[in-house]
Amino acid sequence: MGIVLKGGMIITASDSYKADIYIEGEKIQAIGNDFTSDEIIDVSGCYIFPGAIDCHTHFALETMGTITADDFATGTKAAIIGGTTAIIDYATQYKGESLLTALDKQFKKAVNCYCDFGFHMGITDWNESTGYEMERLMILGVTSFKLYMAYKNSLQVDDGVIYQALKKSKDISGLVTVHCENGDIINELVKEAISEKHLFPIYHAKTRPDIVEKEAISRVLTISELTGASIYIVHLSTNMGLESIIDAKRRGVNVFVETCPQYLLLDDSLYFSEGEKYIMSPPLRKIEDNIALWKGLSNNLIDTVATDHCSFNYNGQKNCDHNFSKIPNGAPGVEHRLALMYTYGVMKNRITLNQLVSYLSTNPAKIFGLFPNKGTIAVGSDADIVVYDPNVKNVISAKNQNQNVDYTPYEGFEKMGLVKYTFLRGRMIVKDEQLVENEPLGKYIYRKPFKGGM
Amino acid sequence: MGIVLKGGMIITASDSYKADIYIEGEKIQAIGNDFTSDEIIDVSGCYIFPGAIDCHTHFALETMGTITADDFATGTKAAIIGGTTAIIDYATQYKGESLLTALDKQFKKAVNCYCDFGFHMGITDWNESTGYEMERLMILGVTSFKLYMAYKNSLQVDDGVIYQALKKSKDISGLVTVHCENGDIINELVKEAISEKHLFPIYHAKTRPDIVEKEAISRVLTISELTGASIYIVHLSTNMGLESIIDAKRRGVNVFVETCPQYLLLDDSLYFSEGEKYIMSPPLRKIEDNIALWKGLSNNLIDTVATDHCSFNYNGQKNCDHNFSKIPNGAPGVEHRLALMYTYGVMKNRITLNQLVSYLSTNPAKIFGLFPNKGTIAVGSDADIVVYDPNVKNVISAKNQNQNVDYTPYEGFEKMGLVKYTFLRGRMIVKDEQLVENEPLGKYIYRKPFKGGM
Amino acid sequence: MGIVLKGGMIITASDSYKADIYIEGEKIQAIGNDFTSDEIIDVSGCYIFPGAIDCHTHFALETMGTITADDFATGTKAAIIGGTTAIIDYATQYKGESLLTALDKQFKKAVNCYCDFGFHMGITDWNESTGYEMERLMILGVTSFKLYMAYKNSLQVDDGVIYQALKKSKDISGLVTVHCENGDIINELVKEAISEKHLFPIYHAKTRPDIVEKEAISRVLTISELTGASIYIVHLSTNMGLESIIDAKRRGVNVFVETCPQYLLLDDSLYFSEGEKYIMSPPLRKIEDNIALWKGLSNNLIDTVATDHCSFNYNGQKNCDHNFSKIPNGAPGVEHRLALMYTYGVMKNRITLNQLVSYLSTNPAKIFGLFPNKGTIAVGSDADIVVYDPNVKNVISAKNQNQNVDYTPYEGFEKMGLVKYTFLRGRMIVKDEQLVENEPLGKYIYRKPFKGGM
Amino acid sequence: MGIVLKGGMIITASDSYKADIYIEGEKIQAIGNDFTSDEIIDVSGCYIFPGAIDCHTHFALETMGTITADDFATGTKAAIIGGTTAIIDYATQYKGESLLTALDKQFKKAVNCYCDFGFHMGITDWNESTGYEMERLMILGVTSFKLYMAYKNSLQVDDGVIYQALKKSKDISGLVTVHCENGDIINELVKEAISEKHLFPIYHAKTRPDIVEKEAISRVLTISELTGASIYIVHLSTNMGLESIIDAKRRGVNVFVETCPQYLLLDDSLYFSEGEKYIMSPPLRKIEDNIALWKGLSNNLIDTVATDHCSFNYNGQKNCDHNFSKIPNGAPGVEHRLALMYTYGVMKNRITLNQLVSYLSTNPAKIFGLFPNKGTIAVGSDADIVVYDPNVKNVISAKNQNQNVDYTPYEGFEKMGLVKYTFLRGRMIVKDEQLVENEPLGKYIYRKPFKGGM
Repeated sequence: MGIVLKGGMIITASDSYKADIYIEGEKIQAIGNDFTSDEIIDVSGCYIFPGAIDCHTHFALETMGTITADDFATGTKAAIIGGTTAIIDYATQYKGESLLTALDKQFKKAVNCYCDFGFHMGITDWNESTGYEMERLMILGVTSFKLYMAYKNSLQVDDGVIYQALKKSKDISGLVTVHCENGDIINELVKEAISEKHLFPIYHAKTRPDIVEKEAISRVLTISELTGASIYIVHLSTNMGLESIIDAKRRGVNVFVETCPQYLLLDDSLYFSEGEKYIMSPPLRKIEDNIALWKGLSNNLIDTVATDHCSFNYNGQKNCDHNFSKIPNGAPGVEHRLALMYTYGVMKNRITLNQLVSYLSTNPAKIFGLFPNKGTIAVGSDADIVVYDPNVKNVISAKNQNQNVDYTPYEGFEKMGLVKYTFLRGRMIVKDEQLVENEPLGKYIYRKPFKGGM
Repeated sequence: MGIVLKGGMIITASDSYKADIYIEGEKIQAIGNDFTSDEIIDVSGCYIFPGAIDCHTHFALETMGTITADDFATGTKAAIIGGTTAIIDYATQYKGESLLTALDKQFKKAVNCYCDFGFHMGITDWNESTGYEMERLMILGVTSFKLYMAYKNSLQVDDGVIYQALKKSKDISGLVTVHCENGDIINELVKEAISEKHLFPIYHAKTRPDIVEKEAISRVLTISELTGASIYIVHLSTNMGLESIIDAKRRGVNVFVETCPQYLLLDDSLYFSEGEKYIMSPPLRKIEDNIALWKGLSNNLIDTVATDHCSFNYNGQKNCDHNFSKIPNGAPGVEHRLALMYTYGVMKNRITLNQLVSYLSTNPAKIFGLFPNKGTIAVGSDADIVVYDPNVKNVISAKNQNQNVDYTPYEGFEKMGLVKYTFLRGRMIVKDEQLVENEPLGKYIYRKPFKGGM
Repeated sequence: MGIVLKGGMIITASDSYKADIYIEGEKIQAIGNDFTSDEIIDVSGCYIFPGAIDCHTHFALETMGTITADDFATGTKAAIIGGTTAIIDYATQYKGESLLTALDKQFKKAVNCYCDFGFHMGITDWNESTGYEMERLMILGVTSFKLYMAYKNSLQVDDGVIYQALKKSKDISGLVTVHCENGDIINELVKEAISEKHLFPIYHAKTRPDIVEKEAISRVLTISELTGASIYIVHLSTNMGLESIIDAKRRGVNVFVETCPQYLLLDDSLYFSEGEKYIMSPPLRKIEDNIALWKGLSNNLIDTVATDHCSFNYNGQKNCDHNFSKIPNGAPGVEHRLALMYTYGVMKNRITLNQLVSYLSTNPAKIFGLFPNKGTIAVGSDADIVVYDPNVKNVISAKNQNQNVDYTPYEGFEKMGLVKYTFLRGRMIVKDEQLVENEPLGKYIYRKPFKGGM
Repeated sequence: MGIVLKGGMIITASDSYKADIYIEGEKIQAIGNDFTSDEIIDVSGCYIFPGAIDCHTHFALETMGTITADDFATGTKAAIIGGTTAIIDYATQYKGESLLTALDKQFKKAVNCYCDFGFHMGITDWNESTGYEMERLMILGVTSFKLYMAYKNSLQVDDGVIYQALKKSKDISGLVTVHCENGDIINELVKEAISEKHLFPIYHAKTRPDIVEKEAISRVLTISELTGASIYIVHLSTNMGLESIIDAKRRGVNVFVETCPQYLLLDDSLYFSEGEKYIMSPPLRKIEDNIALWKGLSNNLIDTVATDHCSFNYNGQKNCDHNFSKIPNGAPGVEHRLALMYTYGVMKNRITLNQLVSYLSTNPAKIFGLFPNKGTIAVGSDADIVVYDPNVKNVISAKNQNQNVDYTPYEGFEKMGLVKYTFLRGRMIVKDEQLVENEPLGKYIYRKPFKGGM
């Protein structure tokens, strides 16, 4: 017999209604009332969300001579405690390497996962066989790709590569995601700053101004329009960039947009106090940008909220150098996304409960080939379920977080609501934000091809 | 015992999944599998949509010395046969009249309805008591209002009235809908055309150019922004207007937008052959506008598709005068919306099945206070259900339509799919596009206050 | 024999060169070198500008139960001392009055003028004979008209009147100028403010927000585009409005734009200290708007800088009421425009000397039918000449101004440069900012029809 | 004694007036009336323009294995016969070459010039000494530079180089001009077309779509904004590109824009008949683009009209290959610019006579450091003068042209007006479009630094 979740308020991307859920095995078997079972869990007063999906994480990432503080074990544990039942991480090709080798290497790191996981493939070195390798990856469940317009002389690709990757992805029903900042210009600005001895953290932001994100977005949308391929913009941080995207949507470009809690809740005034903590790319922006992005979410002009979780300890990793350009880029976030978006989005009337589910779960699932197994509460879907008790109030702090890192950018932020339970494919993994299932049960997800939208 | 719909593909605004539906009384009781009942209807191979909602009809409307061909009986019969289980019609205040009187008059006309129905209230004569009357209407379930920026010296109100109506509606959780064309300018253009003996139907379009719609939209969105009130733009017809709306969405204005099949599928070349049939306001536009509106739907920049059904017979009503300005404005459409949007939207890959449901059912329900009773397939909702068989092919023609009018603007249009069944609150009313329940069971809907969005 | 101005730097809208000017009678006879005469004036080290033209003044204006502090005698005296050799004032129709009567009344007030003068005609009450009266005015040298979109129930006209006036002006080669603010909305905002006891001067600005100017500009440009008539926007004050104008220019609308020193140099923080002084319409805006307008001037996106001089004494006229809505609108400025634009425009590298001449003299002359008699330094033109010594530094103060009003909004502003001489049609009127010719020699200017641009 | 031009109508960028001109030596000595001399030329009924300046020519250019049909002798002869008294050609650095060597090589080709001439310097290979070489060039009178965003693997530079060149040019008062097309994307589109055997001339246009010009313009304006450097966009061809430019002007970017007669008068339908003649980059566009550019000129949103003259014979150079990508890019035009712009601009009321002078003479002179010696009719300026008789009607044809090429893209175009005389620094060179001075008197122009605008 199965598990019955009784008396909760089910929230999907579209619906909000009170009903019971009957779970059998890994799946949602029925939704209705008056189900009987020997395992009935009272969830009255709680919201029932589909498990959140974080489609942008970097676990066990080696970069700038160091490695991220979180590996797959600690990262996915923090994720599922925070209500995230699936993550999509990045495998990244090194120059000269085949995509398959790159996938293989990242796969080997993805051990002891507490939530389900998949991979995007970062392409940095296009050659004659790359297109064919993309086809191979599709079969292996890696159905999305990443290109960088920034990081000159390392990850950055030119517009010709973007064109080819978009064309290929369109042919094979893949989806290209893009980091949009103009690396050539940033490279000059950084050289200039360094030559003028401008080394403090704020110069990280000053050498990556908003207009440089906007330029790259406009450019890549031009290429998208020419190829007719869909495209996904990762970690949008600026109002300017959003304007370009909306304009492209109007012209009919099939563009999806992701932002992150840090671009909604933090701003560049933070660079003046332990600013190294906030060195990430793109950098924190102005409060005006925060507001514009919230408006975008409010009006359905942005599609997903992910974290770009990429954690380094402040002590020993972040604060080792006084030159902003030497500090590893990234910040933690995978654990707190749901709570932050509920507290600062839903509770502040910036987004509805349905939008919360759309941005954190349904849209990522649809865009990245997980739907309808994941991303919704519906008969036949995986029983990836978060029972969220909205009445518990708390404060975010590094002291009691599960992320394996010595700080959080959201230290002291209020947090409304508690992850009462997380179910992963029908198994209760978390109760009251504590693991109740210590075995790491996360599985690799063979993602399906890109379907064209929502 | 209830009815079981077995084996269909349930489509909501967000989800698509195969499951059975258990209906008991007027409600959906459960969704799952293996339900037993003595009334099991096999709907395998069909889509299960929530009943469509047409939030813009004009039945039994007296205007320009005549009355529409369809009254509530014939109009709602055509509606439900076409898969529409609820309509929202307009009661319109005459100068000097109270809103309550206007409602009362329209109520009396709303007899023998085959689907559920509600009313918007058209305000044409603002005075000191109007605000108070709006409050009264809210209690009576009339929670949305309509203002006209066109029809000088008759329905048109000035910007001061719009400002006051928006402020009041915000206070009382009502929603203002607006017909956006600049009536002052149109008035001059019409006078000019007549004085130059430009009387053919095409001059209806030429005297209401796209820029005049765009101007009114920009203006009303300015007022919306100043008041902070939400707003709903009816029957958007132009690319230009859509641009203004998108720009306002980006600025954070809470604007909802409706378009209609005629602005997606017909264009102004039709004015040259029996052009009187297409005299409606706004007029038919260019193919470029059709394309732009489809792109808007594709990218979720438009919220609803209604019909503005306002039927007059071609013979005897439309073709009586050779002066475009004397011909009653409006065209039929309530019967064919679902089929048209499925055939030319879904089948042509312009919108997804989920978007079809959003635009025709879920969004109108949410915006106009019918949700979640209506507008979705979920446990606890009204069993307003359309079983749509996508495999039947047909042609639209006046000869076999149920609308009580002697033509259809879509004569000869292909139609994919058949309304296999329509259920209204659990009762089967239509089978194979034939009434199986001859009694008119439609009820007045006490609509709820406006909640602020989706 | 004539007068020779020797050794100056001649500045026109296009050229800057050192040469001598030979004046004979009222005209510039030759430009070259080595002219002989018995009256040679050494102007070396000075700029030779064409006399400035102020195309927006209100002298002897009766409004809100009072009359402006400056009449034509004091106003034109201040003008010519400040380097302005021609002004264009407004005659304004009262309801029920013919345009010719209105002109006649203002003509009678225009006595003892120290500089040349003309009139625009304000149309407030369109009727069947208005078009014909416009024709009559053209013959009388009144070739431009003014419409108000603000001042509900007094000066305001509706969009139909604007349409008709634009069409008529196009037919007869007149030019319509427009005050762009949405009077209906302002009317509501003012009523609201008063009902909430918000009476301080800042509420003058708050009840006329920037978006209300932008709305009116967009609307009137729509009408201009429909009629194909050229149009002139008076006293642009906002960045938003400029955006709308530029967009219309791009579409090919023939629109000319005026701004004023107060919208370039003052901002709404001034409303908190003797704020009544700055009550004018449109109100002072934000510093961001100042900057945007300077950028517009810098890039030739704005055409003229006038003053909208409309002076009321602070004591006795402006500070009599604590209700912002009762305070007469307007501020002085006719005397200081050239000095302000030289000091804060040219000296701060925001505009070039040639642009200074364009905006203050050549463009107004071309737009309003004074060119080439006025508005340039060329053989055959009127010898309306300002010799400007750029090396003298001073401070603007009410204490030493010639305007007949007890304050200046520019109190304490630095002033670079001195009007060394002003010549009006060959006669030296001013020397070192003192009148040397006490007789008022200003003549009425029969302005020519509008030619279509520059 | 000097020459007197008697009775003409002098046209400058700002003024139009009847007066006589007294020329002494190379200069304009005086403007007035009643001058006496033994050489009085009656020019009544004619316009007196400042000599036209063509700031974009390619004479004696070696490219794609061939050399342009016109060298400096034939090119400048055609120029001066057509009313152009100065040209600015391009010296272009080869990879590995110093700028000074590149200048030296082009200088050696510039022999037997019939009009004055200067050079821009094309930078294709930035290295550590390039900045210093730019300084050296400034001293040699080469005060403007050219960068290419197109022509991958040959002339194209990346955004980092553009950034550095703009910064350096700002420091040294130089001006960077840019060819704006995205070479990476074009490279892919061309490869794609060739692989699909799309080789006809129309594919030249299809592989360089408008959006690719717009993208490059937006990008380079971003860099301009970041550096604060002024910038000059060569040969604008698209409406989209103009939109980006106008938007940047509004933001305060100091951008100058050039278009060419071919982008105003020709469109891509020409690629279907002897299409090789029109293979140039950017390609011919749509009629909608022609219209938009004319509107831009009409409203002063474009600054100059040059020719990009780069002639190849149709027979033997252009029609040798059936693969569009192998055909040398460029077309002739230096001879007919003034006549075309007068006939199709002034006579069709798209631009005024003053704008004609601005775009063809004054603005190029101001932007490129020739002013006020060249670019105007003023006392002290070079007597570079065109006497234009507007009453002569003719037809453009290769048969009677002076350009040394076997076709003209304007074959059969009407031509209103005749170059009655051209004077170069006081010497009559052309009479009735025939050389009367066979000696090539053109001199190299040491151009002055960039002053910042107009």
